[in-house]
Amino acid sequence: MCKTISFNSWNEYFKAPFGALKVNQGADIKVNTNIKVNTNEEVYSIYLVITKEDENLNSEEIRRIPLIKKEENIYECKIEPLFIPAIYYYYFEVEVNSDGQNKKKFYGKIRQNGEACEYSFDNLNKYQLTVYEESKSPTWFKEGVLYHIFVDRFNNGNRTGKPSNPKKNSFIYANWEDDPMYIKDENGDIIRWDFYGGNLKGIINKLGYLKKLGISIIYLSPVFESSSNHKYNTGDYKKIDPMFGDEEIFSELIEKANAKGISIILDGVFSHTGADSIYFDKFNNYDSKGAYNNEDSIYRSWYTFDDSKVGYKCWWGIKDLPNVNELEPSYMNYIIKDEESVLNKWTKMGVKGWRLDVVDELPDEFLTEFKKELKKSESDSVLIGEVWEDASNKISYGQRRKYLLGKQLDSAMGYPFRKGILSFLRGEMASYELNDLYMNIKENYPPDAFKANLNLLGTHDVRRVKTELDNDKDMIKLAVLAQMTFEGVPYIYYGDEAGLAGGKDPDNRRTYPWKNEDNEMIDFYRNSIQTRHRIKALLKGETNFIYTKDDDVFAYERFIDEDSCLIIINRSEEYKYIDFDLDYDLLDEIGIKYTPGDYGVTLEKENGKFVIDIEPKSFMIFKMKNITREAFEQV
Amino acid sequence: MCKTISFNSWNEYFKAPFGALKVNQGADIKVNTNIKVNTNEEVYSIYLVITKEDENLNSEEIRRIPLIKKEENIYECKIEPLFIPAIYYYYFEVEVNSDGQNKKKFYGKIRQNGEACEYSFDNLNKYQLTVYEESKSPTWFKEGVLYHIFVDRFNNGNRTGKPSNPKKNSFIYANWEDDPMYIKDENGDIIRWDFYGGNLKGIINKLGYLKKLGISIIYLSPVFESSSNHKYNTGDYKKIDPMFGDEEIFSELIEKANAKGISIILDGVFSHTGADSIYFDKFNNYDSKGAYNNEDSIYRSWYTFDDSKVGYKCWWGIKDLPNVNELEPSYMNYIIKDEESVLNKWTKMGVKGWRLDVVDELPDEFLTEFKKELKKSESDSVLIGEVWEDASNKISYGQRRKYLLGKQLDSAMGYPFRKGILSFLRGEMASYELNDLYMNIKENYPPDAFKANLNLLGTHDVRRVKTELDNDKDMIKLAVLAQMTFEGVPYIYYGDEAGLAGGKDPDNRRTYPWKNEDNEMIDFYRNSIQTRHRIKALLKGETNFIYTKDDDVFAYERFIDEDSCLIIINRSEEYKYIDFDLDYDLLDEIGIKYTPGDYGVTLEKENGKFVIDIEPKSFMIFKMKNITREAFEQV
Repeated sequence: MCKTISFNSWNEYFKAPFGALKVNQGADIKVNTNIKVNTNEEVYSIYLVITKEDENLNSEEIRRIPLIKKEENIYECKIEPLFIPAIYYYYFEVEVNSDGQNKKKFYGKIRQNGEACEYSFDNLNKYQLTVYEESKSPTWFKEGVLYHIFVDRFNNGNRTGKPSNPKKNSFIYANWEDDPMYIKDENGDIIRWDFYGGNLKGIINKLGYLKKLGISIIYLSPVFESSSNHKYNTGDYKKIDPMFGDEEIFSELIEKANAKGISIILDGVFSHTGADSIYFDKFNNYDSKGAYNNEDSIYRSWYTFDDSKVGYKCWWGIKDLPNVNELEPSYMNYIIKDEESVLNKWTKMGVKGWRLDVVDELPDEFLTEFKKELKKSESDSVLIGEVWEDASNKISYGQRRKYLLGKQLDSAMGYPFRKGILSFLRGEMASYELNDLYMNIKENYPPDAFKANLNLLGTHDVRRVKTELDNDKDMIKLAVLAQMTFEGVPYIYYGDEAGLAGGKDPDNRRTYPWKNEDNEMIDFYRNSIQTRHRIKALLKGETNFIYTKDDDVFAYERFIDEDSCLIIINRSEEYKYIDFDLDYDLLDEIGIKYTPGDYGVTLEKENGKFVIDIEPKSFMIFKMKNITREAFEQV
Repeated sequence: MCKTISFNSWNEYFKAPFGALKVNQGADIKVNTNIKVNTNEEVYSIYLVITKEDENLNSEEIRRIPLIKKEENIYECKIEPLFIPAIYYYYFEVEVNSDGQNKKKFYGKIRQNGEACEYSFDNLNKYQLTVYEESKSPTWFKEGVLYHIFVDRFNNGNRTGKPSNPKKNSFIYANWEDDPMYIKDENGDIIRWDFYGGNLKGIINKLGYLKKLGISIIYLSPVFESSSNHKYNTGDYKKIDPMFGDEEIFSELIEKANAKGISIILDGVFSHTGADSIYFDKFNNYDSKGAYNNEDSIYRSWYTFDDSKVGYKCWWGIKDLPNVNELEPSYMNYIIKDEESVLNKWTKMGVKGWRLDVVDELPDEFLTEFKKELKKSESDSVLIGEVWEDASNKISYGQRRKYLLGKQLDSAMGYPFRKGILSFLRGEMASYELNDLYMNIKENYPPDAFKANLNLLGTHDVRRVKTELDNDKDMIKLAVLAQMTFEGVPYIYYGDEAGLAGGKDPDNRRTYPWKNEDNEMIDFYRNSIQTRHRIKALLKGETNFIYTKDDDVFAYERFIDEDSCLIIINRSEEYKYIDFDLDYDLLDEIGIKYTPGDYGVTLEKENGKFVIDIEPKSFMIFKMKNITREAFEQV
């Protein structure tokens, strides 16, 4: 038996607009019935039911909207604006007479697809409906390309090559090329920190390189004073770590980067401090009357001391990272609100944004206040959160988070992008599943958040793309090409462009291979980025995922106004003949074919379909009309 | 009941000469009987029985010499030369009629004392009689002061302060002052080597300092190519480690040292090589066709491959140190006999001697050949062995070793000196026990070996003297004063003179504290060494240990010809009044008193005894006649 109703949230015939709604925005819903086919069934009524979660994540029905029969087999309704930004859910309740019996049927969303299917009420998989307050992310960010620098590992700018101000009882790698490792005791605790000596001066020296690569945003791993090489255990939020430089050098970096059109973003680690900090000062390294050893410390209320073995609350049980009570007023003032707060101090110096570490640990109010102060201090700045999953519906500590609803993040770390493209390229996921994965994100995110989403292939927390793809250069290029032609902000983890490999931490934190770069790969990155910048559809366009009917071939269209671009990626080791029978007028105009060594092949139309012959492990980009040919020729 | 006979090997009335005998030298033995006291006993006969061990350490009687009654209660005999260098033993067998019954009594040596006492035959503790071939050690050595440098930790001579040619995947300490540590995995295996960057150029730069300190011999920890910081895992016996320098720099060091009257001695590690070596080449780091991976390697016969877990024999089970078969001809040739052997190569370059690492592991024949070749190559050179105990009677692997019998070592590492003086100063041993300990060594060693014995307070293998003595400067000075006034060669472990502390390895390998030296201590060392050099009795003299009758006061006389010197050390926290009632004509002449802050106090004679008032934790040196006052004034 066929479905009683047809609906697909990914098709604007059924739901318009696609995806999330602004608070004052309604939507038109259409449903088709299949009575003609299901002759033994009669539809009495169709309701669109909208629910919302309470604080305990229990579902509450808030609206029940009857669909009106407009034509034979076509029912419609309008969702009036929902006003309160939140994650809503909806489903269809259909009353039918089936074989003489009245019954209710419930239609929700197929897993990983926009289509509706019938569920029992108890198992209902509802459609998500994100309702957000509009909060435009800055254009420089959405149209930028980000480069993530793990400072200790990128470049040492000292003429001697010696690290600046090495820390007492620490180790320096004998050679820049040595393999990173942690120095741990038998309990697995780190007993001495290891450094290569990368610093801010080293970044200044490489701004030319980054500019040429096409970078417009540098995101720095934490730069504040800290005992470690990664500096996620902050020692002093208001001081540049002396191994990295000082405020003067940091200012110089911002200034010289800005002069090249590059913005600087910092990593803000506000869920915990270091145990070795002016605030906690467990080891009496500061003259600050820290919280650990002084009950009357002005920082005492930032922390929670308890009867646990460690004696205080700390992040994931790591005693080097005492948790802070983010909502403690003196902490909020210190980090956010004071005129000379951490946020304001660095923003005034020219920092254009923050990436908030472990944002799941930060309360909504902290985020809201952070963003408010940030935008007040610098309206053109950006706030990014470290979220590993779909950031629109993340639950942390039993709470549905509001990251993307307008008052909090502009952008999230795009780990789902990485997961999807790598799974696809490794053959673990079919192209249609990849479409579904990305479409779900796109549906759930406010459009601006999707455009600001950081499409990353690697970070300091995951294995490098080269290693994930088993050093297969062709495959790596496919991943990079997808990244550079995707909707969202390309995010390059330093060194990936130079052919750096690396397994899990600390291997993914090897040094940038100066003088030993994979120049072919750098060229590929540079050319891909240039293409992105030159083609309006790639830089600003919407995305239309295309179901190619071949598991090995992933394709999507990027389009804006009259411009359009078709990207096709063949992961397989075989030639693929793909025909596109979608209603694609744009394909009337011929683009150019691009494979690494092969330009200018035309796309032919056969029997009204476009048939594309694509080489093994390669990609093609087809330019549509109104786009100049030159853009591609320089790829 | 009193003893039947009296004998004391430490008193020349009973045995002359004292101590060891040359192969062609006899000895006169005298025994007193105590018949007048033991009126119920009659002595029938007294025999001196000499035994010798066979290869399995079983005792064999080789001579039975009757003692002849010369006077009432005085018996004598002569030991004719024993000719074959070896360790002999002797005891007395006394036939008596006691209370009408005939019986045999056996007299051996009291533990830790030269006196004879009665034992049952089975428990007999025989006197040791060392018979040696004369083999003079060079005067420059016996009259020198040695400075042991652990090269990586002494001084970096590069202008940049950067280590030269750092090894792949190794760590450099961030600061010269950092605490040393091993970087180990969870099994305790070292997984990466740590370096400070000390090198030969650094030693060259400090020759002036060493000269001024009074040093005339530098013993270098191993300098040949090796992956580790200590370099006891040799990689190439014929190459200076590139982190330390090269042959040119090594030559320069020898030349410049020699120009200052300083000789260079190397550390020879010939019981094993490194696994990472041109010979074994376990890790394929060399182009040498090493033994590990090539059954037809020219080095294959050096090693013993077996069915053990490691797969080959190695030193103390450490798989990084494969044992060599020292007697394998190709190995003997390579190390010793070839014209360009390791020994000859470096000796020709000007090296004046070798300290053989773990000499207990080296077969007699290897040592004999080594010494023969060494003296042939450079007659004025010296051969030292790493022996931790009394080197005259060491048993290793079930064999009584022949180190000091003439054909092998000139000198041994004087760990017993260290053990004794530290135990005494810490109150764990009374002064008479310390006397006994040193007298035993002196009795057992050939006189020249005792003069060449290395009186050390620290090495890279033990805790530093400062730490052993709980940072008590007064106590440390007492130890140093003893060292510098003792018979044998003072051996300074780099940095001890500068106040360096350090527990067990690796803490005892901290870097020399340049610019943070304890200058008072350096002055004390320098002055003590100067005194040694200026007073003939200290430099060349014999030793007469004095039983002070106070457990806290250790005293000895050094004398030669007309010169003599009395050293008194009070370890206690109290003033001590010591009277010397020994038959000390030399004390007729008055010396000067020296305590750290107090000069020129005279020694007074009271009722025919010298009574000395010595301050808590201090020492005094009394100069006897014919010694100029100036020598002390500059201490």
